[in-house]
Amino acid sequence: MEQPVNLVLFSGTDDKLQAAAVLTAGAAALGKPVNIFLQYWALDSFRADRIAADHGLAPEAGPAGRVAVDDLAAAGQASWADTLRQAKELGEVDIQACSLSMDLLKLDETDLDPLVDGVEGVTAFYLNADEGRIVFI
Amino acid sequence: MEQPVNLVLFSGTDDKLQAAAVLTAGAAALGKPVNIFLQYWALDSFRADRIAADHGLAPEAGPAGRVAVDDLAAAGQASWADTLRQAKELGEVDIQACSLSMDLLKLDETDLDPLVDGVEGVTAFYLNADEGRIVFI
Amino acid sequence: MEQPVNLVLFSGTDDKLQAAAVLTAGAAALGKPVNIFLQYWALDSFRADRIAADHGLAPEAGPAGRVAVDDLAAAGQASWADTLRQAKELGEVDIQACSLSMDLLKLDETDLDPLVDGVEGVTAFYLNADEGRIVFI
Repeated sequence: MEQPVNLVLFSGTDDKLQAAAVLTAGAAALGKPVNIFLQYWALDSFRADRIAADHGLAPEAGPAGRVAVDDLAAAGQASWADTLRQAKELGEVDIQACSLSMDLLKLDETDLDPLVDGVEGVTAFYLNADEGRIVFI
Repeated sequence: MEQPVNLVLFSGTDDKLQAAAVLTAGAAALGKPVNIFLQYWALDSFRADRIAADHGLAPEAGPAGRVAVDDLAAAGQASWADTLRQAKELGEVDIQACSLSMDLLKLDETDLDPLVDGVEGVTAFYLNADEGRIVFI
Repeated sequence: MEQPVNLVLFSGTDDKLQAAAVLTAGAAALGKPVNIFLQYWALDSFRADRIAADHGLAPEAGPAGRVAVDDLAAAGQASWADTLRQAKELGEVDIQACSLSMDLLKLDETDLDPLVDGVEGVTAFYLNADEGRIVFI
């Protein structure tokens, strides 16, 4: 079986999450399993009550970048959450919250969007990653 | 043949691009092929009309970091763009713009510096990456 | 022998360094060798005279993120430097400063915390990384 692509998501801004969603969708379309491990501010963006909110952009985006992102959304680009939902229908995509970051943000599993499949520690992350690539975003 | 090193460049600040250029040059010097995939603000920094401009630094650099970077440039350090040009002469370095980010920034290929070899989608990126490492910067 | 996990640390904020320390400790606990290569602002955070200082958080953390991180530290979470020290006792963890970043920050080896095992160039980094995964943080 093909080795999974393993994404550690740390950043919770909409531009980085969109980049991560595109890498996930591309891998799923090619039949590659994808494991996503949510830490820190990325995990915060997967809370059920704010996954659809505006999570800002990287500071370097600036006002011109903000306009570009808003224009593309207005033209119908799927949000990163929708892109991840589609990727899950298309292929094998497993999304886990980092247990240490759950403690940091004082969350329990019911606080998270249904996109998230569970909570695990870093050891389980490595075991599931097996020999596959690890990409930190 | 050796597997390529595959860099996904997201950030467009001069410090991260310099880090990426150093990783590229090091790989090229060792005979490793390098594929670079330009997204978001990194792609913006490869526009022909502003590749030589100041693209700022990560916010954490602070004023002391700014001075350190300027001092090293004044002492003759090659810019990241020049380092990439040298790496292309030295080895096998292919630089592709992400087609989704081209749409986001409303660019066409003539807007880009000649360092960029073409435009491709994320599926092509994975196919070219083959089994090689993927590094997100 | 198992291939090493190779972390290139660029960012010097306490949240990203904590994420890196957790990935290091998890790998060490599983018997995976870890090579860490310190560049730019991450290297700055390993200076002997400021490793225990406050290095800030990613801008997206915001005031709520700041409070969450401070609360967890007050509750006894080990600092990233302590987590790395424990990982070194547990497994095979080698921490090297990037020679180019040493020049940038005008440092010599005596300026660095004893966690850092030496200084090397990017070519040595690739040779030690061998065929192992490369993660940029």
